[in-house]
Amino acid sequence: MVSVWLSKLKFPLTIAILQVLFIILYAVFIDYDATASPPKTLVNSTQEESGAAMVHKYYAMFQDVHVMMFIGFGFLMMFLRRYGFSSVGLNMLIAALCIQWSTLIGGIIHHHGDTFTVSITTMLTSDFASASILITFGALLGKTSPLQMVFVTMFGIVLFAANEYIGLVVLQAVDVGGSMFVHAFGAYFGLTISRVLYNAEVEQSKKENSVYHSDMFAVVGTIFLWLFWPSFNSALAVEDAQHRAVLNTYYALAACCLVTFAISSLVDKDGKFDMVHIQNATLAGGVAVGTSADMMIRPYGALIIGSVAAVLSTLGYKYVTPFLKSKLKIHDTCGVNNLHGMPAIMAGLAGAITVAMADTDTYGYTLYRQFPAMAPEESTQELAELNKVHQIEAGQGRSAKEQAVFQLIALVVTLGFALVGGLFVGLLLKYCQFLGQPSGDKFFDDSLSWHVPPESNSEASLDGHGANSSASKADTSRSVLFSGHVDKGDMTLEESAFLSDDKV
Amino acid sequence: MVSVWLSKLKFPLTIAILQVLFIILYAVFIDYDATASPPKTLVNSTQEESGAAMVHKYYAMFQDVHVMMFIGFGFLMMFLRRYGFSSVGLNMLIAALCIQWSTLIGGIIHHHGDTFTVSITTMLTSDFASASILITFGALLGKTSPLQMVFVTMFGIVLFAANEYIGLVVLQAVDVGGSMFVHAFGAYFGLTISRVLYNAEVEQSKKENSVYHSDMFAVVGTIFLWLFWPSFNSALAVEDAQHRAVLNTYYALAACCLVTFAISSLVDKDGKFDMVHIQNATLAGGVAVGTSADMMIRPYGALIIGSVAAVLSTLGYKYVTPFLKSKLKIHDTCGVNNLHGMPAIMAGLAGAITVAMADTDTYGYTLYRQFPAMAPEESTQELAELNKVHQIEAGQGRSAKEQAVFQLIALVVTLGFALVGGLFVGLLLKYCQFLGQPSGDKFFDDSLSWHVPPESNSEASLDGHGANSSASKADTSRSVLFSGHVDKGDMTLEESAFLSDDKV
Amino acid sequence: MVSVWLSKLKFPLTIAILQVLFIILYAVFIDYDATASPPKTLVNSTQEESGAAMVHKYYAMFQDVHVMMFIGFGFLMMFLRRYGFSSVGLNMLIAALCIQWSTLIGGIIHHHGDTFTVSITTMLTSDFASASILITFGALLGKTSPLQMVFVTMFGIVLFAANEYIGLVVLQAVDVGGSMFVHAFGAYFGLTISRVLYNAEVEQSKKENSVYHSDMFAVVGTIFLWLFWPSFNSALAVEDAQHRAVLNTYYALAACCLVTFAISSLVDKDGKFDMVHIQNATLAGGVAVGTSADMMIRPYGALIIGSVAAVLSTLGYKYVTPFLKSKLKIHDTCGVNNLHGMPAIMAGLAGAITVAMADTDTYGYTLYRQFPAMAPEESTQELAELNKVHQIEAGQGRSAKEQAVFQLIALVVTLGFALVGGLFVGLLLKYCQFLGQPSGDKFFDDSLSWHVPPESNSEASLDGHGANSSASKADTSRSVLFSGHVDKGDMTLEESAFLSDDKV
Repeated sequence: MVSVWLSKLKFPLTIAILQVLFIILYAVFIDYDATASPPKTLVNSTQEESGAAMVHKYYAMFQDVHVMMFIGFGFLMMFLRRYGFSSVGLNMLIAALCIQWSTLIGGIIHHHGDTFTVSITTMLTSDFASASILITFGALLGKTSPLQMVFVTMFGIVLFAANEYIGLVVLQAVDVGGSMFVHAFGAYFGLTISRVLYNAEVEQSKKENSVYHSDMFAVVGTIFLWLFWPSFNSALAVEDAQHRAVLNTYYALAACCLVTFAISSLVDKDGKFDMVHIQNATLAGGVAVGTSADMMIRPYGALIIGSVAAVLSTLGYKYVTPFLKSKLKIHDTCGVNNLHGMPAIMAGLAGAITVAMADTDTYGYTLYRQFPAMAPEESTQELAELNKVHQIEAGQGRSAKEQAVFQLIALVVTLGFALVGGLFVGLLLKYCQFLGQPSGDKFFDDSLSWHVPPESNSEASLDGHGANSSASKADTSRSVLFSGHVDKGDMTLEESAFLSDDKV
Repeated sequence: MVSVWLSKLKFPLTIAILQVLFIILYAVFIDYDATASPPKTLVNSTQEESGAAMVHKYYAMFQDVHVMMFIGFGFLMMFLRRYGFSSVGLNMLIAALCIQWSTLIGGIIHHHGDTFTVSITTMLTSDFASASILITFGALLGKTSPLQMVFVTMFGIVLFAANEYIGLVVLQAVDVGGSMFVHAFGAYFGLTISRVLYNAEVEQSKKENSVYHSDMFAVVGTIFLWLFWPSFNSALAVEDAQHRAVLNTYYALAACCLVTFAISSLVDKDGKFDMVHIQNATLAGGVAVGTSADMMIRPYGALIIGSVAAVLSTLGYKYVTPFLKSKLKIHDTCGVNNLHGMPAIMAGLAGAITVAMADTDTYGYTLYRQFPAMAPEESTQELAELNKVHQIEAGQGRSAKEQAVFQLIALVVTLGFALVGGLFVGLLLKYCQFLGQPSGDKFFDDSLSWHVPPESNSEASLDGHGANSSASKADTSRSVLFSGHVDKGDMTLEESAFLSDDKV
Repeated sequence: MVSVWLSKLKFPLTIAILQVLFIILYAVFIDYDATASPPKTLVNSTQEESGAAMVHKYYAMFQDVHVMMFIGFGFLMMFLRRYGFSSVGLNMLIAALCIQWSTLIGGIIHHHGDTFTVSITTMLTSDFASASILITFGALLGKTSPLQMVFVTMFGIVLFAANEYIGLVVLQAVDVGGSMFVHAFGAYFGLTISRVLYNAEVEQSKKENSVYHSDMFAVVGTIFLWLFWPSFNSALAVEDAQHRAVLNTYYALAACCLVTFAISSLVDKDGKFDMVHIQNATLAGGVAVGTSADMMIRPYGALIIGSVAAVLSTLGYKYVTPFLKSKLKIHDTCGVNNLHGMPAIMAGLAGAITVAMADTDTYGYTLYRQFPAMAPEESTQELAELNKVHQIEAGQGRSAKEQAVFQLIALVVTLGFALVGGLFVGLLLKYCQFLGQPSGDKFFDDSLSWHVPPESNSEASLDGHGANSSASKADTSRSVLFSGHVDKGDMTLEESAFLSDDKV
């Protein structure tokens, strides 16, 4: 009796404790950014520093990114025919948890435990952090309980924030679209957890597939991700490079879309398109151009990156995912390795190569804005001159090739965090039975954690909710459908349960 | 014969008359705002006053609000399994009517009958007015005819505009997110009408429920509302407070989402989530923080408001809605009392409490921008000094506690307008038979006012529209499905009608 | 054997060749706009000329237009019950092709073969070009192969760009919302192709209709188009007129929506609404006001234009489309003649009339910004004075009536390009068999070019993918459904195929 109550209470109790904790920690640590507070002095703040300027500068792109997180990821994962409520609902739950938790953890790490402030830019970085955990969710989709995902999120955000801090602040790598810190981390963190949780029963599930309409809902997610990806890759670009980041991402995605259709048709025995490829691989160009989006890759360079990403990602869905599943026991529900993992590694490499060729001939003085570690060191003559005209801050005097090496180190460190962190969290999930690992016929099934209505009106009618039908008439209708069988007297309880399964 | 024609003509005729009326009244009363007109003088207008500045300042947030009205509300109401066309279609009709009518009525009331101008800010306030009537529609969904809703809209907008004028201009209450003037008014106006129109037949309808895919369409509405609510609450905030209003709404919604999942699971006997809660209660935080969104409630305060709203709203769906229906004969199709009504009252109270603590220590001189009635009175020394530095206009010298009392008065007046207005409009609808009150099996049914196609391809096939099937083959298929029954010779006409019901 | 391989390879090969060609041509012709390049001089670029300014000025509206292209058009065309994958998928393919190709062709034509630069404004004009081809696709929907649409796109973009160049640069006509150059061209180009490809088999298809849920997906497209149309019509307006273009389009659409409901009900024998009208004719106001959106038509003028467009478009769906089909053998799947064609001609006429009345009394000096050809000629005294104060560039000294005539010439030239170009492209499609003209039961059917999953869970279950069911149990279920029929021993192979048709 007690255990039933505990089992029922563990989810709401966990959330309640977390929410109370957040409220307390927010009260202790967080205040509004100066631009969101009344001006301290009794003079009008200048336009540059005002809240209005912040809103005008960041808000539209923030909302694009926000749509990507909740509509984009949420609907992209709705392709499973019996897991739509969980896909979009748990996506929302995870993202709302990420938003609150990553604001805290990110702030605490970056401010070394001091109090700190929030603004639209922290809203943006929180949404980026959410993206990484939502990618992780994509690898685990249908195979974990909501409570397990809460724990994945809580640990995942800490790992994400630590890795990002090391990459951006310690190593001073650049990654404007977060391809390494968001996509590579999220994908391989999730795939490692998936490997640890591997369960042969998953393979036998009959529910890991789509129906016509669930695929259409998924396309809603695809297209909003595709449309707003330029915002994701450019929202936090330094001013001079933002316009460029928009253009590069736009062209990379256009090429990626086109080539995905070509490869999808090419690898099919009938030459037809596979909706899985169109839903996912068309987006790989956005990932693959993420690290170099604000760099001088030129429009044709963006087309090349997008085209290669499409080939890589589509072939990944066709050949790599089955291989990982059958040979390495890594089950990847959404194929995050193909959409996020491999294109993100490609992005890291493309970024390093582009960085290695960066010089002031190409970038002018903005070289030191985009790659701050390449700026001359403190108190050099060179810095003094640069600083006078362009307010360049002191860097570490790295050469382009050194910066490229640091880019690669950041990529390797990210993969290390993902694998070790994923191993730890995976084992935690595996051995903490109370987190409620699904099993048997509960994989890829909303009924694990939702009350699920009938699928269609006709089904609803059969269940006695029907139009124009009294309960008795509905019963008649059902008996109609099954009369032949019922006549034979062999309708089993299981079959009967199958028919009324998951109806409210 | 004449009456048939009249019955068929009454809707198009009403709309035609209204549209001609609008055109005439627009020609008489309305011109472009100065920023949308060619500059009168032959010099370039300064940036601040130009049309470009207006577009940059308001347009992105206006479009967010616009999406909330048409996609957000429209799709949120698509949860009913046989009422999707009406939900999204009539939502569009009502909003398009509101936009035109509220621009007129709002302008005429605020300008005391003079001519007036339109701009993106009047587009925003017209969309806010639409929101209130769309909330009203949520209470009445499935129980009224399109023509009835046209009358509800025409009267509702007048009541809305009058109440808003009294609240904002006469009482000088503040309500940046319109929680009182939009949400409380719309919800209780609708619930009062619903009470007057109460019909026991509604309870017996078998169609007031969802199917799997209709719930997914509804989630599209939920998420767009959730995402863009910060725009709703901050679009018209004074500049210094806009950034803050974005932050507060964002955090309130994040907490509200998390806590809704917890309470939904807590109150369920199996510990599962209820999609109705996720679709609706996750949004209550946006309503509950509406009045105080631009105030100094701090991020943790926003989390608290969002959390409490989630509890209030989810418990509302679980316990209050059934109580209202069974005890008070108030049928609330979308549960607007839980999503809009109670959270809006909470918002009004939270606003009043926050206002009561407002002082210049916290707000600096912006206190008088946010609460203009608290500014010193005309020709005081204090005002002269404030005015010199900060262009503060004369107020009424209200204390914070006085302002709080006026906030509460505005809330009470709003509820009064909603109840009395709802009573009047409800009686009008009840006794004007020609408006076409639905009855019997036409509740919650698109076929009342739409031509409805078959629900699915298989159904379409059965109807002889099928793939790869000549008409005769389709007939065969149908006979297959019903052979057992048909053999028994007892298929009634009604059952046959049920199968082909509402097919074009 | 070789021919099978060729048949399978022709699509991916064509795309691959095009993508490689684009990469080469982009490398040769295209560079970043100055505002997307690092500042050439070592000084900070002023705000006006910076990349940040470009992003702030154009990006939000660009994204609105982008959503219109991919979500708006893509989902609007999902109304067909078995063609949803193709509608949204091929829409994406075509648009991604248009984006790359029209950037090239438009740039080459406008820069007479020189190298040129890209920026958010070229992204906008590329999206406009896409719109015209997506409209063409609407006329051909369900009747062409993907490869055919690739050829339509490649030729169509060249024709579009040539016609736009003649209209905008040679004739100096104005068309801020592209009603003539985008909508009229796209519609009549597509309808001409449709005429040439006319096939009586199309009429016999049982699949050219909608089901309940496909209509709801289509409404997603409708509403996003409706919401963001003001961005389409104002994105490239000169600064002073942009605010006005937003207002005019907003009011035209509001009136159009209202009147569409009235007419849809009026022309129906039962007085019910037809979802086809609501999905399409509500948008006609955006087209009809397109040419005059930035002109001084005043809000009531916008209401009139929107109302008339609604009548025209709804009656078009009711009476013109059937006439075109039965009498002129022009099959118009999406009714683009009603949504784009006729309203675009109306827009051109309304534009010409409004232009004919334009003078400096109404527009001030901005007359010469909006209608550059009306500015005084080079080295006149009048120009010298205007130029001194307002930086007006030399025009051709056209009178208002002359400008109106040029507007009409541009409309006629556009129709000429559409008809002659459509004839040419239509014949190409008709006689190039290898492009893969669909036939027989492949019209309006995704299975022509997609792997299509089962339609619903219950269908999936019947196919042995079912919940809780081993393969044998599923087989049992199917036998249940068909026992009566099977007992009679007359289930044909075709019927069996019909049941499992298009399952993966």
